Amino acid sequence: MRATLLYQAGDVRVEDVPDPKIQQPTDSVIRIVIGCVCGSDLWPYKSAPFTDHPRQMGHEFIGVVEETGPDVHNVKPGDLVVAPFTYADNTCEYCRMGLHTSCRHGGQWGLNGVDGGQGEACRVPYADGTLVKLPVTEDSPLLPDLLTLSDVMCTGYHAARTAGVKPGESVTVIGDGAVGLCAVIAARLLGAGRIILMGRHAPRTDLGREFGATDVVAQRGQDGVAAVRELTGGFGTERVLECVGLKDALVQSAAVVRDGGTISRVGAPQYPEVPFGFPEFLRNITLTGGVAPARGYMEELMPRILSGEIHPGRVFDRTVPLGQVAEGYRLMNDREALKVIVRP
Amino acid sequence: MRATLLYQAGDVRVEDVPDPKIQQPTDSVIRIVIGCVCGSDLWPYKSAPFTDHPRQMGHEFIGVVEETGPDVHNVKPGDLVVAPFTYADNTCEYCRMGLHTSCRHGGQWGLNGVDGGQGEACRVPYADGTLVKLPVTEDSPLLPDLLTLSDVMCTGYHAARTAGVKPGESVTVIGDGAVGLCAVIAARLLGAGRIILMGRHAPRTDLGREFGATDVVAQRGQDGVAAVRELTGGFGTERVLECVGLKDALVQSAAVVRDGGTISRVGAPQYPEVPFGFPEFLRNITLTGGVAPARGYMEELMPRILSGEIHPGRVFDRTVPLGQVAEGYRLMNDREALKVIVRP
Repeated sequence: MRATLLYQAGDVRVEDVPDPKIQQPTDSVIRIVIGCVCGSDLWPYKSAPFTDHPRQMGHEFIGVVEETGPDVHNVKPGDLVVAPFTYADNTCEYCRMGLHTSCRHGGQWGLNGVDGGQGEACRVPYADGTLVKLPVTEDSPLLPDLLTLSDVMCTGYHAARTAGVKPGESVTVIGDGAVGLCAVIAARLLGAGRIILMGRHAPRTDLGREFGATDVVAQRGQDGVAAVRELTGGFGTERVLECVGLKDALVQSAAVVRDGGTISRVGAPQYPEVPFGFPEFLRNITLTGGVAPARGYMEELMPRILSGEIHPGRVFDRTVPLGQVAEGYRLMNDREALKVIVRP
Repeated sequence: MRATLLYQAGDVRVEDVPDPKIQQPTDSVIRIVIGCVCGSDLWPYKSAPFTDHPRQMGHEFIGVVEETGPDVHNVKPGDLVVAPFTYADNTCEYCRMGLHTSCRHGGQWGLNGVDGGQGEACRVPYADGTLVKLPVTEDSPLLPDLLTLSDVMCTGYHAARTAGVKPGESVTVIGDGAVGLCAVIAARLLGAGRIILMGRHAPRTDLGREFGATDVVAQRGQDGVAAVRELTGGFGTERVLECVGLKDALVQSAAVVRDGGTISRVGAPQYPEVPFGFPEFLRNITLTGGVAPARGYMEELMPRILSGEIHPGRVFDRTVPLGQVAEGYRLMNDREALKVIVRP
């Protein structure tokens, strides 16, 4: 089959790789119907050194089950399914507490003989635990929305949930990428009264307004902080959803959060240390969040997509065929596209 | 009056200072009955450079109201009162949410013309908001217990409350100082099922067992981490109460907390950055806590002292008269005493 390989920064190729086969009795093999490029794929796209053992890329996909191992009972050939961005058994102690990203048997796509999601097919470990069946057909117009359950919608929701957003509260969302926009949706779902989106790209923040942002702050640094403070009577917001992953975004988060408030970080940290010492201690600021256990949120969020209550698939603004996936990376990296669908 | 002054590291003196007087209509002046030395006093005691404008020391005290300004209505001359380690108006937005340490009019003892608590008397700003009346007389044997409401008992409780300790949960307390021991009391009050106290000083950890610790781990570093992991089936504990304030203690906290768990820090940070980058992000670890808004917990905890349910005053193992306060500092700094009462 054909799959997306990253050889080094800026060098994405589609090449032939071995067809996936059942290896464990708990595996299934699925034919991928729709995948996409993630903001987190851009970190290695920007910086990875050359390798002659390139990794299969992609960790968000919907597909049709083609084959199942003898211990797979929850899905069967022909089912349309969505996968979270890490696989998990959904039965261990961590999965039972909703922390599927810490699953004792879980792992990442594209590593250790497991395929990636930007390809024609994929071997899925722990298929019963990992896959969630979709009650639509593969030609459904809801497929892009449902694809966001793999990652960005669940990640935005994780930010809002771990931040503890409650009805009527004020929330700042830092970052106008797909996760930030989904965090706006999530904050609104949880009843936030004021949602301030900090981002500089008008087409994205405009979509953020449609998703529920009550205010947009385009300024950065001290000007941006001053704007949020002015909107909140000088206090800052009770919750901050940090959807970038850079240290500057954390500093900004601390500057716009109210004393006693909570910052949830869901942007993959590109920093080794958090600059929260004595001043943030004196302000009783909480730092929470982390990598989103998407699998734990999928059943909860899916009905809201199926009912049309939320429409997170609007973050996709381009579609490329698998053969042009490199162009998809380029579009996102150059900010010509917000998020790109890949169709095998 | 006489008061304790810190001139530089290791140089604590008792000298005459001006008698406190009412300056604002919301002030009161109290005669101090009992005060004490705090672990946090030891940071400047270890490191402060010389000054010829020495600060009045002490921020924990019980006293008798001698005089009140015309706008003070909640306390009157003759009342025995306890003060929290920061003063606060108890009416602003932050105080109403229980975050008295962020009070818009609050501040620290011993600064800006406000006296310290290791002296004969003290001017108390915002007396109505700051002071809590005690329903005992100044010769009550409960005075040391009630004195812990100024700081250490409320600080330990803040750790447990912000960590979100729930009945049956597992908790590690890092640090066997007075705050750590009070955190053990607090974890037990909140129903923790297992309380692992990490500390190396047997007389202190023995007291910790009496306060409710189910296990004591005396080893440090990797051995200590291994011991906690072994006690918890490999997982670590759901909550960690960090009662030290050093970076090493934070690293240890992360190593003994369960994935998805919460670390509450109440030790004053002696570090500018928190070493929680990508690995802690992947484990969904939450960092909370901060300086304790003691005033917000005093009414809640006082009945538990008056009823004899908790006995935090046992952390005091020495008493010195005011004239020997320097010896009190030395005893604590040399770890010959756990916590020292100062009697004017």
